Amino acid sequence: MKLCRYGNVGQEKPGMIDALGRIRDLSGMVDDLSPADLSPSGLHRLREIHIDDLPLVSGEPRMGTPWNSVQKFIAIGLNYVDHAKEAGMPIPEEPVVFMKATSCIMGPCDDIVRPRGACKLDWEVELGVVIGTRAQYVSEADALDHVAGYCVLNDVSERAYQMQSSQWDKGKGCDTFGPIGPWLVTRDEIPDPQKLDLWLEVNGKRMQQSNTKAMIFSVAQLVAYLSRYMTLLPGDVIATGTPPGVGIGRKPPVFLQPGDQVRLGIAGLGEQSQRVTAAD
Amino acid sequence: MKLCRYGNVGQEKPGMIDALGRIRDLSGMVDDLSPADLSPSGLHRLREIHIDDLPLVSGEPRMGTPWNSVQKFIAIGLNYVDHAKEAGMPIPEEPVVFMKATSCIMGPCDDIVRPRGACKLDWEVELGVVIGTRAQYVSEADALDHVAGYCVLNDVSERAYQMQSSQWDKGKGCDTFGPIGPWLVTRDEIPDPQKLDLWLEVNGKRMQQSNTKAMIFSVAQLVAYLSRYMTLLPGDVIATGTPPGVGIGRKPPVFLQPGDQVRLGIAGLGEQSQRVTAAD
Repeated sequence: MKLCRYGNVGQEKPGMIDALGRIRDLSGMVDDLSPADLSPSGLHRLREIHIDDLPLVSGEPRMGTPWNSVQKFIAIGLNYVDHAKEAGMPIPEEPVVFMKATSCIMGPCDDIVRPRGACKLDWEVELGVVIGTRAQYVSEADALDHVAGYCVLNDVSERAYQMQSSQWDKGKGCDTFGPIGPWLVTRDEIPDPQKLDLWLEVNGKRMQQSNTKAMIFSVAQLVAYLSRYMTLLPGDVIATGTPPGVGIGRKPPVFLQPGDQVRLGIAGLGEQSQRVTAAD
Repeated sequence: MKLCRYGNVGQEKPGMIDALGRIRDLSGMVDDLSPADLSPSGLHRLREIHIDDLPLVSGEPRMGTPWNSVQKFIAIGLNYVDHAKEAGMPIPEEPVVFMKATSCIMGPCDDIVRPRGACKLDWEVELGVVIGTRAQYVSEADALDHVAGYCVLNDVSERAYQMQSSQWDKGKGCDTFGPIGPWLVTRDEIPDPQKLDLWLEVNGKRMQQSNTKAMIFSVAQLVAYLSRYMTLLPGDVIATGTPPGVGIGRKPPVFLQPGDQVRLGIAGLGEQSQRVTAAD
């Protein structure tokens, strides 16, 4: 299934994408798509719905985050060898874990707002992993059982803020730095999360192009690893790291400017498109 | 006002502390203490309640986190000069910002569970600042208007996890690493948050003893600073840094072991007490 939420900010309705890529209105069946809907029983209930019986949504509504109430937005740094190299950082021997403020989360095609005083706004296409059931001390073999599905993420970053102290979070969690969506694609549709092409363009120019097979730590390894340090809860999302091609890694560096257009996507998970604006 | 929540985990009721330090049952007036109750209008409504008319709570119930649904748990590193020195770190020129996973939050006297494989479990008494109204690009002069109140926090840390990569979050957000409470004390009762004695003891031995006047960045400065990087929302909490005396700063270092008892407090904000246990 491809689950989504559509409509104006704060008024999103739940939806489902049909075989022709059209949005079907789920609001007659569930109030919203919440963490509890991402459990195996919640997804089972949604799977029993006959999608062709659901009303078609007309027009091209704004897409929201595909589920609500994210409690933890966890991110992994330097999880592709070539990105670690372009960042001038050592190849990590264990996952590098940081957190994005949940207030940065927005819809997949909302505007990225460059904060006041920011000058090094950058992009990072990433595979997002969405937790479906509580995970604490889970093994790598069992890890994917705790995953509800996958999504496209842009781990938007402000490099000057990120690097100003030793701790990156300040440059990772600014408002609008977490576009998620357009869909949550359930795990059954993605038999191998380590075989997905991902890409990102700025103003039509291809900047990132890779495949999740190039990850240093796999999705299963990351879920198992994180579950040793914090209990993962339904609705939590993990940004699994970005491949090479970010702005700060280019020679000379390139940063996003107001008016720029970012497009990104992952095979089977859909596409995002963001316009860059400046904070008032 | 001193607001609290009491009762078993997941079944907490809202309460208020009366002039004699007794818990009064607020559950006849409000369902729970939620972020919306921390707004000026929410607090005004609570202030109009005649506390002596509320039922007394008998016995000594478990105390929960004083309000529910924390979205962001932001923390500041190295905000006391002598703690930066004992940690062998430079005195920061700007606040060092990191995040604690919200799943680490627990009641003020619940057990601290040492995670499997952990060996450097440490303590950090801190002043917690609770946001009452949305704050984005606020000035230092206006910053405290966005604060609902204050609380005691223990920024429990696992130093090996914290220092394993460049990013601290992994060692800061383990389950049970965020005791909050016993009360949220509203701002009107704390005319100057930079004049509060704070202390921490392990097994009856005084380990930390300081005053919030020794902070490098004041509460007002921190709120204003953070609001430039992320919108602060009602219910968000800021851990403002710890004074010297943590375990890793002692010679030789001292770390918490199962069976240890931690007590900590801040003048006017109450006390916490935690027993250390080991994960199964």
